[in-house]
Amino acid sequence: MPMAVGNAGISTGCGNPAGWVIIRAQDSAVIGDRTHPRANMRAVDIIIKKRDRQELTGEEIEFFIQGFNRGEIPDYQVAAWAMAVLLNGMTPRETAALTLALANSGELLELPREIGRVVDKHSTGGVGDKTTLVVEPLVAACGVPIGKISGRALGFSGGTLDKMESIPGFHSDLSKEAFIEQLRAIGLVLAGQTADFVPADGRLYALRDVTGTVQSIPLIASSVMSKKIAGGADAILFDVKVGEGAFMKNLEEARQLADLMVVIARDAGREARALLSQMDEPLGRAVGNALEVAEAIATLHGGGPQDFRQHCLEVASHLLVLGGKASSPETGRRMAFDALDGGAAWQKFRSLVQAQGGDLKYVDEPDLLPKADFIAPTPSPRRGFLKEVNARVVGETAVLLGAGRVRKGDPIDHAVGIEVLHKVGDQVELGEPLFRVHANSENLLREASERLLSGVAWSDDAVEPLPLFYGLVGL
Amino acid sequence: MPMAVGNAGISTGCGNPAGWVIIRAQDSAVIGDRTHPRANMRAVDIIIKKRDRQELTGEEIEFFIQGFNRGEIPDYQVAAWAMAVLLNGMTPRETAALTLALANSGELLELPREIGRVVDKHSTGGVGDKTTLVVEPLVAACGVPIGKISGRALGFSGGTLDKMESIPGFHSDLSKEAFIEQLRAIGLVLAGQTADFVPADGRLYALRDVTGTVQSIPLIASSVMSKKIAGGADAILFDVKVGEGAFMKNLEEARQLADLMVVIARDAGREARALLSQMDEPLGRAVGNALEVAEAIATLHGGGPQDFRQHCLEVASHLLVLGGKASSPETGRRMAFDALDGGAAWQKFRSLVQAQGGDLKYVDEPDLLPKADFIAPTPSPRRGFLKEVNARVVGETAVLLGAGRVRKGDPIDHAVGIEVLHKVGDQVELGEPLFRVHANSENLLREASERLLSGVAWSDDAVEPLPLFYGLVGL
Repeated sequence: MPMAVGNAGISTGCGNPAGWVIIRAQDSAVIGDRTHPRANMRAVDIIIKKRDRQELTGEEIEFFIQGFNRGEIPDYQVAAWAMAVLLNGMTPRETAALTLALANSGELLELPREIGRVVDKHSTGGVGDKTTLVVEPLVAACGVPIGKISGRALGFSGGTLDKMESIPGFHSDLSKEAFIEQLRAIGLVLAGQTADFVPADGRLYALRDVTGTVQSIPLIASSVMSKKIAGGADAILFDVKVGEGAFMKNLEEARQLADLMVVIARDAGREARALLSQMDEPLGRAVGNALEVAEAIATLHGGGPQDFRQHCLEVASHLLVLGGKASSPETGRRMAFDALDGGAAWQKFRSLVQAQGGDLKYVDEPDLLPKADFIAPTPSPRRGFLKEVNARVVGETAVLLGAGRVRKGDPIDHAVGIEVLHKVGDQVELGEPLFRVHANSENLLREASERLLSGVAWSDDAVEPLPLFYGLVGL
Repeated sequence: MPMAVGNAGISTGCGNPAGWVIIRAQDSAVIGDRTHPRANMRAVDIIIKKRDRQELTGEEIEFFIQGFNRGEIPDYQVAAWAMAVLLNGMTPRETAALTLALANSGELLELPREIGRVVDKHSTGGVGDKTTLVVEPLVAACGVPIGKISGRALGFSGGTLDKMESIPGFHSDLSKEAFIEQLRAIGLVLAGQTADFVPADGRLYALRDVTGTVQSIPLIASSVMSKKIAGGADAILFDVKVGEGAFMKNLEEARQLADLMVVIARDAGREARALLSQMDEPLGRAVGNALEVAEAIATLHGGGPQDFRQHCLEVASHLLVLGGKASSPETGRRMAFDALDGGAAWQKFRSLVQAQGGDLKYVDEPDLLPKADFIAPTPSPRRGFLKEVNARVVGETAVLLGAGRVRKGDPIDHAVGIEVLHKVGDQVELGEPLFRVHANSENLLREASERLLSGVAWSDDAVEPLPLFYGLVGL
C-alpha cells in the first residue's frame, strides 16, 4: 500500500475485535484537510447556499454529513439539500468533499502492506452483468489481489453476491479476520457489506430513494466512491454502463459520471480508469442468478458468449495495468487470455468458492445448480433482422419472474431467469426462439414471454451489431 | 355572501360547539372539482414529476397535501418537493390547486349572509406598517364589514395583534360565536388564528422555514391565499411591499406575486386587487408596538406622518371599491378622507378596542401606553441630504431592542422601538436627531444607535423623496 490511507493515527483499540489495522479518517492527513467545523454553522444556511447555486466548502459538507450521520440534522433538511444538489449540481471539488465526508462516517480499511497493491472493479450495473464472476478470478490468477466488498442489489441489474449464492453453501458474511486471511491465502475475496461500512452513505441512499433524488451524477459518484475509498483499494476500474438497461441513458451523462469518479479517486490518492460500455441490450445470454453463474463458469472454461468473453478480457486487461502487472492494455489482454484459456482463472474461481463455503460439486457440474420448474422458448413472431433487444425490458422481466428484488430484504429466486438467444444484428426466422424463459409458475412463464417481446424490434434491412464499448476515461 | 363558499353541504354537527355555519371544503362544489385521489398514487412520483418540470394535476397536489396533513406523507418527502417547487416553479394552475388543498385542510368559515359583503386586507409585511390599525376602522366606519384573522409575526415586520396588545386588556382569542357577534354589532373584528385554522399551511410553513424553501413566490402566494379563502372574505386587497425592508426585494418579483394572488383569488371566486408599495425606508415614523399604536391613534385623529396618512387613504379607497361602497378609487378616497377627518374612523377604533376588552383610557390618553426606560436621539454624524434610511436595518434594530420575535412563542417588549425622524430626501444638519431610540437597557440603546446609523446614507446633492406606491394590479 504505497499511498492510500496513510499510517498516521492508527488505532487498534476496542471496537476492533478482529484485530484489523483500522484507521479513523479523522486521524488521517491524506483523507482531506479537516479543520474543526465552526460551532455556529446551521444546516438551513448550507441548504440555502446550495439552493442559490453557491459552492459549499469542504467544512460545510463535512458538518452537514456528520450531523446527518449522528442524527442531529434531520431527514427533511437533508432531503431538501439533496433536491437542491440534484437540480443545481455540485462542482468536482464539492463532490470530492462529499465523498470523503461519507467515507469518513465509518471505519476505513487499511489492508496489510505485504498483500501488495490491491485493485477493485465497480460496475454501475447492467442486465446480464456477471463480469465480476469471471474477471476477478482472472485478475487474481494473474497475481493481482482483489478484496471486494459488495452491497445487495435492488432493481433489475442484479447483485454479484446474489448470483454467487446460487451455489449451495456459498456465504459472504466474512469477519474482518477471515477477509484478510483469505486475501493473503488466495488473493481473492467477495464479501458482503456490513451495516457499519460507510453508514452515512446507506442512510443518504435510503433517503434519496424515497425523495426522487437518486438520479444525480455527483450524488451517484460520491456514493460509489465513498465505498471504494473506505474499502482500501489502491486502484479502481469503473465499468460505466450506458443505455436502456443502465442507470445512465446517454453517453454524455455516462462520460460525466466516469470523469467525475476518476477525478475523485485521484484526489483521494487512488489510481482510476473508467470504461464506458454499451447496455442497450443485455450482456451475454444469461439473465438470472444461477443461469449467470453457469454462464460465468462456461466462460472461465474458455467458452461462453463472445460478447461477454470480450467484455471480460477488456476489463481484465485494464485491471492488470492498474495492478502494476501489465505495462499496457495489450500486454494485459494477452495475460488475461492465457489465464482464461489456460485454466488458471477457473482454478482461482474454484478456490474462491471453496474458501467461502460453496459446494464445489455445483460448480464442477453446473447442471446441478437450482433449476426452474417451467422452461420454454419465446418464438419470434416475425422474420427479420433484430434491431432492438431492450435490456431494461429483459431486466424487468427477470424481476417479474423473481430473480431480483423490488424492496430491500425481499427474497430472491436463484433458479429463474431468461436466456437471451439473439443479439441485435442477428437475422431470425418466424418461429425461431428469441428467448428461453425459466419460470416457477406457468402464468409467469406466459406473462414473461409477452413482456419480453414488447422489448424486441425488427428491421427488414440488415442491422449492425451494437459495439461493446464506447471509450475509456482516465488514461 | 353572493359567491364565496356556497351553501352546499352545510354541517352543524359536533365539533362545532359555537354553532357557526361551517362547511367542509370536501362538500363544496365551489372549492374546486375534487375527484377521489387514485389509490395507486405515490408521493415519490409526485416529487419526481415536479423535479422534472412537469405540471402536477390538482388531484396529485390534493393527494400530496392531504397525505402530509394526515401525517401519511413524511416531512422529508414534502421537503424535497418544496425544494423542487422553489427551483422549478409552479404554474398558476398548480398554485391555485395548492391554495385550495391547503384551505381544505381545515374548516372553512362562512359568515352569515345578513352581514353583507365582507372585505379583507393583507400586507406582505414591512417595517412600521401599522396600516391595519387605521384602515380597518376607517373602512368599517364607511359601512364595509371587516373580519380579520391574523397569525403572529416573526422577524422584523411586526404583527398587528402584537401592536394591539400594547393596549392593556386587549385580547384577540375570540370564540367563533364572539367573532360573528362582534362582526354583526360593530362590523369590525381583529382575531388571532387558532391552531386548526388551515393546519396544513401551518405545518408546511414550519417545514419551509427550516429547509430553505420560504423564498418561493408560488409557495408564498398559496400560503397567504389559503388563509384568505378559508377566512371567508368576499374581496381582498393585497398590499405587496417591495424593497429593503420587505420580503420581495425587487419590483418584478413583487409584481409576479401580486399577479399570482389576484389570479388565485379570482379562481376561488373572490374579488381581488393588489397595491405595490415602497418599503425601502420605514412607513411613517414609529417602529415598535406601543409607538405604532400611538402613531395610528394620531392618524385616526387626522394627524400622523404624511406618508403614512396618504398610504392609509389609498389602501382604504380600494377597499371601499372592493366592498361595493364606492364606484371608483377617487370616490373611495373622498369617503375615507371624511371618515378620517370627521372622527368616524376614530370612533370605530374605540369600539373595536372596547369590544375586545382593551382599556379605553390608554387609547384616549396614548401617553399612558407602555414606555421604555431609556429614550435618546441618534444625532446625524454629518450634514447632507438623506439618500437611504434602510428599512431592514431599522426593523432588525427594533428586533434587537426586543420589539419583535426571533422564534415562535418568544415574548416581546411592547414599549421599545424607534422613531424615524427623517425621510429620504430630507436635508439634515450635523448633530440633528435622525432617530429616537426607545430601549429598556443602556447598552441596547447605544448598540441600537450605532446599528441604525449603518443603514443611513447621505448625499451632498438634493435627493428625490421615495414614491409611496409603484402600481396597482388587478383593475
